[in-house]
This record gives sequence, structure tokens and C-alpha cells, in this order.
Amino acid sequence: MPMIAVDIMGGDNAPHAIIEGAVRAARCGVPVLLCGVQEAITVALPSDWKELPISFQFCDELIAMDEEPSRAVRKKKNSSLVRAMKVMVDGTADAFFSAGNSGAVLVASVLFSGRVKGIHRPAVGAFLPTKSDSFFCIDIGGNVDCKPEHLYQFALMGHAYVQLAKHIAAPRIALLSNGHEPFKGSDAVKKTYQLLTESPVAFVGNIEARELGKDDLLDVLVCDGFAGNVLLKSIQGTASTLFSWIKDAADRSWWCKTLLWLNRGMFKTIKNRLDYAATGGALLLGVNHPVILAHGCSDARAVENGILFAYRVRKERRVQKFNEKLLALMQDNLSILVDVARKNQGSQPQTPS
Amino acid sequence: MPMIAVDIMGGDNAPHAIIEGAVRAARCGVPVLLCGVQEAITVALPSDWKELPISFQFCDELIAMDEEPSRAVRKKKNSSLVRAMKVMVDGTADAFFSAGNSGAVLVASVLFSGRVKGIHRPAVGAFLPTKSDSFFCIDIGGNVDCKPEHLYQFALMGHAYVQLAKHIAAPRIALLSNGHEPFKGSDAVKKTYQLLTESPVAFVGNIEARELGKDDLLDVLVCDGFAGNVLLKSIQGTASTLFSWIKDAADRSWWCKTLLWLNRGMFKTIKNRLDYAATGGALLLGVNHPVILAHGCSDARAVENGILFAYRVRKERRVQKFNEKLLALMQDNLSILVDVARKNQGSQPQTPS
Repeated sequence: MPMIAVDIMGGDNAPHAIIEGAVRAARCGVPVLLCGVQEAITVALPSDWKELPISFQFCDELIAMDEEPSRAVRKKKNSSLVRAMKVMVDGTADAFFSAGNSGAVLVASVLFSGRVKGIHRPAVGAFLPTKSDSFFCIDIGGNVDCKPEHLYQFALMGHAYVQLAKHIAAPRIALLSNGHEPFKGSDAVKKTYQLLTESPVAFVGNIEARELGKDDLLDVLVCDGFAGNVLLKSIQGTASTLFSWIKDAADRSWWCKTLLWLNRGMFKTIKNRLDYAATGGALLLGVNHPVILAHGCSDARAVENGILFAYRVRKERRVQKFNEKLLALMQDNLSILVDVARKNQGSQPQTPS
Repeated sequence: MPMIAVDIMGGDNAPHAIIEGAVRAARCGVPVLLCGVQEAITVALPSDWKELPISFQFCDELIAMDEEPSRAVRKKKNSSLVRAMKVMVDGTADAFFSAGNSGAVLVASVLFSGRVKGIHRPAVGAFLPTKSDSFFCIDIGGNVDCKPEHLYQFALMGHAYVQLAKHIAAPRIALLSNGHEPFKGSDAVKKTYQLLTESPVAFVGNIEARELGKDDLLDVLVCDGFAGNVLLKSIQGTASTLFSWIKDAADRSWWCKTLLWLNRGMFKTIKNRLDYAATGGALLLGVNHPVILAHGCSDARAVENGILFAYRVRKERRVQKFNEKLLALMQDNLSILVDVARKNQGSQPQTPS
């Protein structure tokens, strides 16, 4: 049965919320391997923990949310994050879960799990809701300052993942930009537009953030991690602001309050559609093992759901199937990728070493 | 009385919605100078137009929404957009309004109105709502691929504009990023962080898109036009999706529908807070004349409000006052700007001509 290595020291609410979430997942029958400082773990465990599928890896360091990722991972070999990653890579555990420093998770994944052959940069994707469906947004973290070939590879990864997750034969790929026209967008976006036009994936052109809630426009949204982060967090922020306005209006009038209370079922359904905690985590694509990243602000419920997600990913061998698909796709797209590499070699100024 | 030059051929709903909006503004007593194709104008005018402060500049070209801006402006000297810009610059009119190709408006502004001395790139700012107040977001259009010195100048422009518009002595400047830490963000964002730390403006650090709805965090949000566009449009898109979910739920149940109908006043108030058409336009900062850009999808009401906004801007001599403030601020920040310019000269590879 797949065991999930959990970095219990990572996250705004660590270690308590992480341990509580992991214990809840264990109560659902998912074996968890808690990696962290012994004192922090023992204090937070429930009295009946011995009856649950819980094991431990004790360590004495942690990587804080505000630490510079590369340095932290290289320096803190005995941190909960690095230890959790290592026990997955050495086969003791089968998947990795962390709500900690996402940059550090990315660095540790590349360093210890390793990139899929040919992939320049692993990326994080997540399904975001439309009016009555969803699309897969890649990248939502980590990869700022992307080159066209990186964005192009995100498109390939999105294509392969949506084929697998939604059984869509030719997912429609759209590029996030500030206008539909091919000349709109940053330099990298414009060049990616050209690459995608020449590629065999079903490229449907640029799309603006305003249209993303509409149905039937796209299956995969390609963007760099900076724009993806702005998009994801502004969706969450706007929803939260709107609900706060509704709450304020209710607080000012008993009439509004009564009507909203009577209609609470509808609002709960709507809130649930935007609830990140319902999935609890996103899969890192482009590495060799199942790495699940969660929101820094995850509470126990989000952690529980994130660990259950990691369990399903591993049980369905989703990473293995995805990587096979991706490798085949990279082979099909080899000519384009080689062209880009050649052009880059020719045009980029040599930096003196 | 200030007269507004209106590009009636620009916008998704041009020329009808633009003419209708301009006529409505004229009915409020605002003189408008309609620039466009004669046939398009005469067909759409009401029978009593001669009693209104409406005048004309006829031309025979238009710049379409999907034309490449620089080329279009240089080639189409007799387009409504260029003509409207020119009649403002030559003093026939006092301000410019267009819902057309925003890239072309930017290019024409730089070409004909000219940049404020020392400003590299004019930028568009707009107030976005928080829980119970607002912040000024700059840039929301045009300037993709910004260098640190551009973002730094956006901060100075935001500072000066908010001082003027909200009478805040030291507006809090925040930088849009994917995390709070100074090492988060694109290369340009990280370098801008350093510049702002050294500057005399009240820099409060990086901010994530999720926090922007909270009160009392910031007065000015600095970002490049790509991220600003994603932010602005995802706020609009998310609100629209949420309202469509509410409507769908109502359509499925007479009980929900009745409750929502009884509570319609509250929802209308909330919708109004996000209604771009209520302002109708945004001021281009960093050029020598009042240039107002409107949403491409503006309807007659948005156009009317945009022209009334242009009128107020001109009547209050806002551009003149803003430019005076900005020049003084640039003088105070001269040492930082000179440092940046020097570093750039030293570090950037020379491109062979």
C-alpha cells in the first residue's frame, strides 16, 4: 500500500495542522511517514496513534517559508523537507507531500528525484473552475522568467496531463496573454505563440484572463509561474473579497442577513467550487516521483485531502503513466525543440565565465 | 470649457456605442469633438444634435483593434485615433478619449503628445477596490517586458498620482509578486525591490494577488502591464463567473430565485463596486496631455462616463499638476535613477548594430 512521506515542519500552520491532517489521512487507511523534529511530533500525536499506519523519520532542522530555496536545500540536508524527499526517492515511501517552501520543494525535487529526460523545468499545474467545468493551468508556481522553450514544454506537459486526467484526445491549449492577437504579450509569450502554431498540439491561440471562466474555450492554460500565481491568487482573493462584501451587507441589515441565511445552501455550494482545500495539493510535473505541493496556508482538512490526493496519484501510477506519455510527446515534438535549442545557441550572447 | 476629442471608430462597439456615449456626455454639457468617418457619424447622430456642443473632424481611415500598434500609427496618419490625438496636441481640443487599440493609443501619445522629461515609459493606472477602499494599480496596460527602472518609475508615478487624487502624504507602495520575500518574483521584480528599498517613497514590500482585497495594506500596486492586465481581468472574470454561478443556482430553484430577487438591492450594490463602466476610462500617466483610454468592450454608458472623466481631469488640470509633482519627485530620486542607468550601461551586452 503506497506510503506518503509528509514534511510536517513546512507550512504556515506547521507542525500542528500538518500532523492533524496526516493523522486524519492515516485514519482513512493511508500509511504516512512523518518527517520532522521528534518533540514537535510526539506532542501533537493523538493517544491512539499506535493503532494507525503512522511511522517516523526524525530530524533536527527545518526549512522556513522565507528561506532562499537553493541555499536552504543544499545547506540543510537534515531538514524535514529534504529528509521526506530522500525517503521517497530511496523507496522507503512512495510519494511526497509538503505545504512548505514551494521553491525549496522544487529545488529538492530536481536535485533528488530528477527531471524527466529532456524537460528543462518541472512545473506545477492545477485545475481551475470555469462556469460549469475546469481547465488545467500550468505553471502556477516556481518558474518565473520563463523562456519560450519552457512555456512550450509546459504546453506539452499540460497536453499529456489532461489527456490522462480527463481522457480528452486533443486538449485545447491556450496561452495566457493581454490580448488575442499574436503580437500581444511579453516577448516570451509571442515567441511561444509561434512555436505552438507550428506544433502538433491543438493550439487555440492567446486568451485573456477575463475569459477564463467561460466554458468550452480551452482545456490547458499555459503561462509562466509568475502570471499563473497572480491569476490563481487573484481568483481566490476576488472571491474572498466578494464574499466579505456580501457578509458586510448582511451585517448591516437583518433583512439581508435573513435572506442570505435562508439561501446559505447555495452560497456554500459556490464557495466549495473555489475551495483549494478540497483537493489540498497540486502535482509537480516533469520529475520522476510523485511530489505533491500544498498551499502554505493549508489547514488540517487541506493537508488530509492533499495526502489522500498523493495516495490516489501513487495508486493509479499517474506519474509513471504521465512520464511515458510525455516522453513520447517530446519525441514527436523533437524537431521543434531542437530548432529552438539551435536558435538559442546561435542568438544568445555568451556570458563570460 | 474643455473640449474632448473622441476617437469614434475605436472599440468593439464602435462607432455606434461611442457616438451614443459622446452624445450623452454632450447632453451633460461637455463639448465633444467627434473624429471619424463622416458616414458613420451622420447615420448615428440624433435629430437634435445641432443643439448640442458637438463638432467634427472627418477622416477616412481607422485603426482596427487587432492591428500592430506601431505600424498602424505610423502608416495611418488619417485615422480617427491619430486625428483625435493631433487635434488635442494642436490645442483644438483639450483632452483625448478612445476605447480603441490601446497599444496604438500609447504609441500615438508618445509620438504626438510626448513623454514627460525623464520618463521612459508612460503607464496606465486604475483604482481597484479593496474590502472598503481602493488601491491604485500601475501599469494595467501596454508595458509588458519591463525593466527595473521602468517599474521603479511606475512606483514614482503611482506615488504622485495617489498624493494628488487621494491627498495621502506618503502613499504605501507595494510590488506585485509571487511571495513576500525579497528573493521572490521575476528578475525585474527582485531588482525593483532593491531599488524601492533604497528610495524615499514609502515602500512596504512585495504583496501577493490574494491579499489585494484586504484594507490598509497598500495605496499603490506596482507591476508590469502583463501582470497588471492578468490581475485586472481576472478580477473581472472571477466576479463574472461567481455571478453566473449565482444566476445558475437561481435558475434551478424557484426558492433561490425568490430569495435572490428579494435581495437584489444588495447584489446590485456589489456589482456596482466592480463596474468598470462607472469610471469608463483610465488616465495615461507620463505624457504631456490628458489621454484617457477605455475598455475595448465599452458600451455607451462607459463611453459617457469616460468622457465625463476626461472632462474632470482637464478641468482640474490634473495632468499638469501631476506632471509638476512627478518632475519634482524624479529630481529627488535622481541619484537612484542615475545609478540604474549607469549599471545598465555597464552590465548590458552591446547588441551589434
